[in-house]
This record gives sequence, C-alpha cells and structure tokens, in this order.
Amino acid sequence: MSAKPTPLSGFPELLPEQRAVEQQVIDTLRRSFELHGFAGIETRAVEPMDQLLRKGETSKEVYVLRRLQEADAGTDSGMGLHFDLTVPFARYVLENAGKLEFPFRRFQIQKAWRGERPQEGRYREFTQADIDVVMKDELPFHFDVEVARVMAEALSGLPLPPLRLRVNNRKLIEGFYRGIGAADPQAVITIIDKLDKLPEEEVAALLGREAGLGDEQVQQCLALARITTSDTSFVEQVRALRVEHELLDTGLAELAAVIDGCASVRSERFEVEASLSLARGLDYYTGTVFEIYMVGFEFLKSVGGGGRYDALASDGRNTYPGVGISFGISRSLVPLMSRGLLSSDRKVPSAVLVALTDEESRPASDAVATALRARGIPCEVAASPQKFGKQIRYAERRGIPFVWFPGHADGADGADGADGADGADGADGAGHQVKDIRSGEQVAADPAAWTPPAEDLRPQVTMKEQPQ
Amino acid sequence: MSAKPTPLSGFPELLPEQRAVEQQVIDTLRRSFELHGFAGIETRAVEPMDQLLRKGETSKEVYVLRRLQEADAGTDSGMGLHFDLTVPFARYVLENAGKLEFPFRRFQIQKAWRGERPQEGRYREFTQADIDVVMKDELPFHFDVEVARVMAEALSGLPLPPLRLRVNNRKLIEGFYRGIGAADPQAVITIIDKLDKLPEEEVAALLGREAGLGDEQVQQCLALARITTSDTSFVEQVRALRVEHELLDTGLAELAAVIDGCASVRSERFEVEASLSLARGLDYYTGTVFEIYMVGFEFLKSVGGGGRYDALASDGRNTYPGVGISFGISRSLVPLMSRGLLSSDRKVPSAVLVALTDEESRPASDAVATALRARGIPCEVAASPQKFGKQIRYAERRGIPFVWFPGHADGADGADGADGADGADGADGAGHQVKDIRSGEQVAADPAAWTPPAEDLRPQVTMKEQPQ
Repeated sequence: MSAKPTPLSGFPELLPEQRAVEQQVIDTLRRSFELHGFAGIETRAVEPMDQLLRKGETSKEVYVLRRLQEADAGTDSGMGLHFDLTVPFARYVLENAGKLEFPFRRFQIQKAWRGERPQEGRYREFTQADIDVVMKDELPFHFDVEVARVMAEALSGLPLPPLRLRVNNRKLIEGFYRGIGAADPQAVITIIDKLDKLPEEEVAALLGREAGLGDEQVQQCLALARITTSDTSFVEQVRALRVEHELLDTGLAELAAVIDGCASVRSERFEVEASLSLARGLDYYTGTVFEIYMVGFEFLKSVGGGGRYDALASDGRNTYPGVGISFGISRSLVPLMSRGLLSSDRKVPSAVLVALTDEESRPASDAVATALRARGIPCEVAASPQKFGKQIRYAERRGIPFVWFPGHADGADGADGADGADGADGADGAGHQVKDIRSGEQVAADPAAWTPPAEDLRPQVTMKEQPQ
Repeated sequence: MSAKPTPLSGFPELLPEQRAVEQQVIDTLRRSFELHGFAGIETRAVEPMDQLLRKGETSKEVYVLRRLQEADAGTDSGMGLHFDLTVPFARYVLENAGKLEFPFRRFQIQKAWRGERPQEGRYREFTQADIDVVMKDELPFHFDVEVARVMAEALSGLPLPPLRLRVNNRKLIEGFYRGIGAADPQAVITIIDKLDKLPEEEVAALLGREAGLGDEQVQQCLALARITTSDTSFVEQVRALRVEHELLDTGLAELAAVIDGCASVRSERFEVEASLSLARGLDYYTGTVFEIYMVGFEFLKSVGGGGRYDALASDGRNTYPGVGISFGISRSLVPLMSRGLLSSDRKVPSAVLVALTDEESRPASDAVATALRARGIPCEVAASPQKFGKQIRYAERRGIPFVWFPGHADGADGADGADGADGADGADGAGHQVKDIRSGEQVAADPAAWTPPAEDLRPQVTMKEQPQ
C-alpha cells in the first residue's frame, strides 16, 4: 500500500458510530419479522447468469465474476452477483422445495450488488431487508395484506422520517387498459411508469405514439393515474371513469382489501395510500404492487417496494406463487447519516471504561471488567495507565458514559484518595468508585452489584427531524 | 427457469432450521465481542485488485468483478471480492484513521470469497468472525493476550466440539533459525509449514535441498517443531536445544506471556497449547500466530487463526500495527450440520401457532397473535382453516411447540367444546386454550398473560458429540 486509500464511489462504508445505528435497525427489523413467524435465511451472493438475466434494464447492471486463475481473461465463470433478494429466493425455493414447509414465510437481510451509476440513495453495494411468503400452486390473498402489515409494523419501530406505503394492483391497471381497448397493456404500463420523471404532456404524447392510444384513451389512462386515496374511495373514483373489465373488478377488490387490511397500521408516521400511478416497471409482479417512500425525501425515489409474483418461482413443472416486500436499509440510512440527521452517541459498545492505575494492576482492572461483563455490562479496560484525567477524556471521545476507578486490595481508598460518597467499600473490601462523566457524579460501587441505568447499556440512536 | 436448480459447489446454503443454528452462533459471538468493547463494522465486499494481490498462493484465488455493461468482455473493473477480512480492515483503518479512536478494537462478521477447489470445510463463499486491535505506530503486547482471551471466551459459549488454540511466535522461530545460522529463515518457515502435509523425512530433505541447511541444522529445526506444551515448559525445552539469538529470546518471552494469559480460559472444552511447528505460511504475521482446531475434526484443518501484523496497515507515512484472530463460522458449522451433529428443533421462529376456526374468524386469531407478540412471544396464525388435527400436524412439522385455540367472543367454549382444565375463560371472556403438542397437555389461557417456558421461546440448538 503506497498511498492513503480513498473511498469507492457507490460502496458506502460506515464508521463505528454509524454502524451502531445500522445494526440497531437490522436488529429491530429482525426481531419484528421473527415475532411474526418469518424464518431467516441467507442465499449465496452469486447466481448463474441465466438466472440473473431478465428482460429489461436490470440485465445491464449485473456484476459478473470470474476467478483470477482462469487462464483466459475473457472467460467468465458464468456467474454474477445477485442484484436483489427475490430472484435468489425464488431459486432457493425451487431448489429446496422438498425440504421446506409451505406456506414458507422468510426474511432475508443481506447485501445485493448493481453496477449502476452511483448517486445519493443509489449504490452499487447495498443492504436490503426482504419478507416474502410463497406456497405451492396457489397463494391465498390474505398474505398480500399480511406482508404489508408485517413490514409496516417492523418499520414503525425505526428511527426514520415518516414513511409512505403506496399500493396499487397490476390486475387493476391491466384490466383498465384492456377495458379501454389498449392493444398492448404492457406498453401502457411502461409509459405510465414514467410519470415520476416526465410531465403529463410528454407521457400523453408517448401513449399516443408508442402505445397507439387515441386521445380519449390517453385521457382515461392519465385520469386513472391521478387517483390517490388514503382509503377505499379510489374504487368509486375508478368506477366513475366508466371502464368495464373483469380483471379490473378483481384488481379493485384486491386493492381495497389491502388498503382496509392496513388500516390498523396507519399512523402519523406511517401513511398508506392507494396510488394508481404506481406500476413497478416491467418486473415480475402480477397483482398487488408496493412502494415505500420517506416523507420529505422523495428525491431519493423509493426506499422499498414489492408485490405479488405468481410465476417467478417456476421450473416448468412446479410453480410457487409469492408476495413480498423489501426495505432498502442502505438506501434509507446512508443519506440520513451523511446529512447528519441520524447518528448514535457511542463509537464503541462499552458502557464503562475501567481505569488502569499502572500496568501491574491490570489484573485488578480485568477482574472488575469480568465482574461487570458477567452481568451483561459491556466494558473495556484502559489501554495504558495514563493520568486519570486523560483516561476520562479517552472515555469521552468514545461516548463511554462511566469510568470505573478500581479500589485497592489492601483496603486503601479509591483513585481520588477518598471514600465513595456513602463511605462504602467495594466487593474486595476496597474503595471502588464509578463516575458518570456526563454529570461528574462519582459514587462508591460494588463490581458484583452496580449497574448503569438501562438506557446507558447500549448506544442510543438519535434522529433529527428535517426542517419543514 | 426451465429446470430444477441444483446446488452450487462451494457455496453452501442453509435450510431455515440450520440457519437458526448459524444465527445463534453469530449472535453469541457478537454479544461476547460487544461485552469486551469491540465495535462492529462491515467493509464493502470489493477491493481494488492492487490491494488484494499479495505474494503467495492467495493471489490466484481471487474473484475478479466486471460490470456486464462493460462493452469489452476482457475489461475487468480492477476490483475483486475480498478473500479475508484482515486486508479490507487494514485498508479501512488507513482510509478512516482521522475519524477513528485508537486503540481501535473491532469485530467483523461477514462473508469472504475465494476461488479455491471446494472440499469439505473449504468453500468459495464463507462467513468469518474476526476480532482485531490496531494502534498507531506501536501496539502494546498485552493486546496479543487480550484477543486470544476474548476469542476463547466467545467460542466457549458455542455448541461446538472441544476446541484447541495453538499458539506460536514468528520472532521465536525466526530467531531460532537465525541462531542456527540459516541463510534464509523465510524459506525454512515455508518448508517447516509443510509438516502438516508431509512426513518428517521429506521435510528434512527439503530443508537440506531448498533451504541449504546442514544435517545438524535440519535436526535442530525438526526438534523445535516437535515441541508442544500446554504450559510455559516449552521455554526450557527450547533452551535445551542450545540456540542463542536475541529475537529468539523476545519470541520466547512473548509466547510465554500469551500462554500464561490464556490460563484462565482453558477448560475441558478449550485447550491452549504452545505449538512450535505452527507457522501460518507466508502471511503478514510478525509476532504471535494462532490457529484454532476442532478436536476430532483435524481433517478439516484449521477453523480459525490469526496473529500479529506489525506492518500490514501502512501507507508509507503511517503504520498501524495490529493483532487479531479469526473464526471460520462456515468452516466449522457446515461440516457439523451436514454430518447431522448440529441442528435446531424448529424451522420457523414461532413458539405458538394460533389456530384458525374459519376465514371469518381470522381477525379473532390475529388479535390473539397480536397480544402474544406484544409480550415478545413469536407466533403465527394458521394459513387456512383446516381441521384442528391438521393444524396440529402443521405445527409439528415446523417444530412449533404450542397450538392456541381461540375462544369465542360470545362466551362459548373453546375449540374442543369443553372448558379449559381449570374452567377459566380467556381475556375476552371466552374459552381460549393452549396445547403443548409435545405432551398433549391442554390448559385454559389468557392471551394477555400466558407465556411459554423461557426455553420454548426460541429454537433450541442441539449438538451430538462425535463417537470417540
């Protein structure tokens, strides 16, 4: 190594105090998923290229692997890094179907890789948290409601800005486009999807030019896309457009069921809306589709999404329909942290720094640390026997709230030469003292009994609200 | 997807009941590391090739990346997947030195990738748990003892066979080889390292032929390599070989300090030995070296290792010496699980299956589940209203120990038509009952108060001892 390394664009890394935030978010999501009976799995990072390549833009963003020892530099291993967790999950289900119990509810919190152009919120290496449910042949509709509710509950425990869950249904929009007589509903879906990037007039022009729609049909498509409601009133609004199709009826009923089912998880910090411009592009979704946004951070685009995919996990003989939803941990946390809106108060897990009088008394300090750890109190012993003032600053710089001054085995007083505030001795008969360096308060303490307040055991995550 | 996918050699994946084991192991290691004040970090999966390529065999096992959209198939991105966690850690330290506190104690539990020939215990994608300490310019020796003790304590909580920690010291062996007059100590180290693969006679021949040693020197090297002790008696055994060198003296003192320091963590299930044939090949170690073995599974070779590296993290101006030790989670768990020696009793996290009388009463079953989850009890509601006997088998197949039969809001009796064993009603005034399907015992229960025994809250990991 001959020069100081520089960061790699698109591959965010976190400092310890930031990783503490991410770890807490992951722990909270995992606990919530497990409380709902979702089993954790991991899939390998690589998949065969034929599994990864699908029609559409994603195919160009795959990282291809080869082993350095392959003599021919042009020879790929035929493998690439997975770019999401749903394609690997579908493959895992097909591969292991005989050993899984169905319905199979699983969560995966793992990294994925995409070779896209890095920008804020769009990384080349990123962590996602996915929940999915699959069954053999048929998957009852109540699971569409379940995954939305489970993810909503899981996210409600996180230190994030308010969130918005947008929901739509592919049967609804496809049924509508068929009902108006569109020859190529997929083309319409792709063009309508551009409403988040282009003005209505341009989308209208594309609908005419590339999807072959007449003026009235174009107006009907745009009218549908404008419908957004927090309840099931979207049904009447769609009916008012006077389009008839059986698939549309099914889609309306399904979407109404999801919106109703999510009523109990709505709050000030978690909106749920039927949003009929939501299409999720050309992906494999066949029914309910979801997208998650951070309110006030819509410029990041979606920080999560998902939907129902009836035919993704299929090997020609067996089909496992599924529904799932994914939350982008990197996509949501990294922009918040880089803007100073989310942080933790500690660079190390330690709640206590056990001071060191001199190297010879390291065993005594170690003994105090061992006693604290036996009661679940994270701590560390000072690295070197500096003056106590410096050891306090060592703790301060790390965000460690307590410094422990070990007593003396011979009954002598603690570090500052005085008995503790209550004159009590420590477990070994000598004056152990612990100082809360935030307040300066110092008291006598027994290594076998003292505990910090519960909130001081772990790093605390703080989030600042965006100015409105 | 046109055919049932098959597993990918060298990329092990776990079923949910196996992942439950791995997750508990990771949780246990992490908790132990955090109790000792080690901060968790992750580094990106990719590193520039110039950081990854080092002298020695490892360079050929790197997975190189390129983006599929690169027009020229021969153009690599200049990036590869990291093959361990120490090289990325050293780069992370150099890159972030201004924002880290030193000594920097960190743990990483992450995957790494190597393109080696897959065999049992040697995978192409594998998870490691590393702890390291680095400081600027100088790293006091007590950290060599600390990392060994922290890893030993962390491993002692795991459902593994007995473990053996072998320790040696590069200064000791290099000092010895210089003391006997070897012209190229590195060459001697490399050849002695082959003692785990070749018979002594062949190693002796190589020492003569490739390291230019005379017969007496060869005998002295082999005599050193035979020394293995569980305490510091190796010092006298080395002295008896009558070799003098200052570096040897330093190495003997350091190794004795580590062996003494580890005395408190030794147990029936965790041996620590000074093992003077241990060399750790051509890696970057400059002092203490470690290897971890599973007793009875030595054919897997080491399942962990590490040591001190004084010059790894250096950018020419600043040097951050470090010491660390790594434990191979995949390397140890996957062979145990594939041999049926390690498993868990549950395919899902649920402790309770809430039965479903009919689809209309799903809200009532959901309400019971919500009440249980509010008290930290993982549970799931049955997927469909099958006959109760089938719902019990559904729970059995998953290892869920309890089935809950919701009462009726109108005060009618529970699912089997009878009051609970004690005639009590549930929280909503009706006969909720919970059955332990292992014993068949069924009692009345209140969703707002009932809890299972603590050991039933989570999957239990069981390990079978190898027949001796």
